[in-house]
Amino acid sequence: MSDLTNRQLKLAARPVGLPKPSDFTLETAPVRAPGEGEVVVKAIYASLDPAMRGWMSDARSYLPPVGLGEVMRALVAGRVVESRHPALKPGDYVTGSTGLQEYAVVDGAQLTKVDVRAAPLAKHMGVLGMPGLTAYFGLLDVGALKEGETVVISGAAGAVGTVAGQIAKIMGCRVVGIAGGPDKCRFVVDELGFDACIDYRAEDVHKRLRELCPGRIDVYFDNVGGDILDAALANLNRNGRVVLCGAISQYNATEGVKGPKNYLSLLVNRGRMQGFIVFDFMARYPEAITRMAGWLEEGRLKGREDIAEGGLEAYCDVFARLFSGGNTGKLILRIADDEPA
Amino acid sequence: MSDLTNRQLKLAARPVGLPKPSDFTLETAPVRAPGEGEVVVKAIYASLDPAMRGWMSDARSYLPPVGLGEVMRALVAGRVVESRHPALKPGDYVTGSTGLQEYAVVDGAQLTKVDVRAAPLAKHMGVLGMPGLTAYFGLLDVGALKEGETVVISGAAGAVGTVAGQIAKIMGCRVVGIAGGPDKCRFVVDELGFDACIDYRAEDVHKRLRELCPGRIDVYFDNVGGDILDAALANLNRNGRVVLCGAISQYNATEGVKGPKNYLSLLVNRGRMQGFIVFDFMARYPEAITRMAGWLEEGRLKGREDIAEGGLEAYCDVFARLFSGGNTGKLILRIADDEPA
Repeated sequence: MSDLTNRQLKLAARPVGLPKPSDFTLETAPVRAPGEGEVVVKAIYASLDPAMRGWMSDARSYLPPVGLGEVMRALVAGRVVESRHPALKPGDYVTGSTGLQEYAVVDGAQLTKVDVRAAPLAKHMGVLGMPGLTAYFGLLDVGALKEGETVVISGAAGAVGTVAGQIAKIMGCRVVGIAGGPDKCRFVVDELGFDACIDYRAEDVHKRLRELCPGRIDVYFDNVGGDILDAALANLNRNGRVVLCGAISQYNATEGVKGPKNYLSLLVNRGRMQGFIVFDFMARYPEAITRMAGWLEEGRLKGREDIAEGGLEAYCDVFARLFSGGNTGKLILRIADDEPA
Repeated sequence: MSDLTNRQLKLAARPVGLPKPSDFTLETAPVRAPGEGEVVVKAIYASLDPAMRGWMSDARSYLPPVGLGEVMRALVAGRVVESRHPALKPGDYVTGSTGLQEYAVVDGAQLTKVDVRAAPLAKHMGVLGMPGLTAYFGLLDVGALKEGETVVISGAAGAVGTVAGQIAKIMGCRVVGIAGGPDKCRFVVDELGFDACIDYRAEDVHKRLRELCPGRIDVYFDNVGGDILDAALANLNRNGRVVLCGAISQYNATEGVKGPKNYLSLLVNRGRMQGFIVFDFMARYPEAITRMAGWLEEGRLKGREDIAEGGLEAYCDVFARLFSGGNTGKLILRIADDEPA
């Protein structure tokens, strides 16, 4: 395998605002031979996630920042092409944090084998992957969702929002989404079964929340931050919970993050706002995946993937769609044409 | 008793910014005879609390706003002068929400009898009253404080902060206060036993928190909001908790509340920010008062009251001290000279 050539997208500069192509370099290098316990993985899909924006910054966070000159961190789904790890063999499909490169040589223990007969490879990056797990633990554990409650989900048509809303419906809740544009709103209501969806580009979110949630909001699952978070806080119910999953409206802010001016709603309503990182629930991933795979099979849960072409060269352009509202469901970048038969 | 004359301070206008004398009217009226079950209470002390500012506004909150033309709501400690309630007799000392007036005719069931032999009357408005209960439940229940943790308390020299810091010390925690001016800082360290205190008027709070809490903050008990809340969020530990007790820096804001721009620290640190209202813990007041009275007796807990003279006429001026940092400990306005012998 030592004659394979790798292409790697490396972080060259800390982006200011939205990342641009000059913040990265595309380099070529030979693929080294795997050592004992290592595996060579050929990347097929890279998961494009809002969290990547944080990894590019050098602020203190839950993971160390990607160093300048290092391969950009990314969750990848791929195929094993060579293995010196006993649990993996060539042809196996796996997911892992192997970065934006065509091949990765990594410790086999860091990879998760996926069953492509249970669900197509891309679904293991979406509804059965990190976004699905994030929705599951965020809503059920952090949000402590109870049957019959009213749930509002921003970024409703995104990778996490689509799953969160469907789980809330399965749990017997009333679900109102917030998304950008009529197509996304129609999608989450007509295809995914949300009770309603607010188009934040065309409607007054605060006013619509008041109309659509007359008993106020029990759980607000926030993917966006900014004015929408404030509108939800203003409509929070007594003992309401705000699940802080993300703040995509703020990640590229160059003039500082906008804090939620309505945070005192937490005080008068005895509410709580709580953040979480899905990795903390790792020990319970199998439980969640088993339940969600069951819902998928029963047709109660649908995964939606948005697979972009163009390979590593297209990364910056495709990543930007997350912030412009240009994707519906899980945004994935195809690195190679090598899907399971 | 029907020849008693009452003086009442009524809300005349919704204040903009800091309340001013023209927002109130002082009126004279006869004291009506008590009905069956009612009691006539002579006010001795009125508790002046930041929460009063919220009661003057007509925003939705945990209590209805005080109506224009109504007696301003206030917690009062006083003496029963006439009673048609079986559990109370003339001479009994009581506390209750009887408002800013010299006499109140109220249902006896709404009053709490206090034991002035156990502690002086004023302490029943401070360390053994609402501020003490707020500190107790906020720290132990909402903050879920654990032994050995690092606790930071803003408004450290105030009615709630003084008690919260002492309870945290009793619980075996490291306690850093934040207060305005060297006198208050010395007071909480030298008199109350806090480990350290930051003078927010003279020091860089963020930098000092980093120095004084090298292991970061486990529980931040917030009485002030604004920049100090942001500095605490920036120094929050993993699984840290922010107890939202108040936001005194924001209550008179005429250009909108300043939201905490560092709120995403809750996300990366898996933190939570939670509000509460002490009334929700009413069923457990006796438990808390018994414990705190025990600590008082043992000398492990000290109450500090700041009793202002001047009666109802002085209300606006004295109330303003809460926002200018002009009080240390529980701010009380004397309505009448009629303390227990």
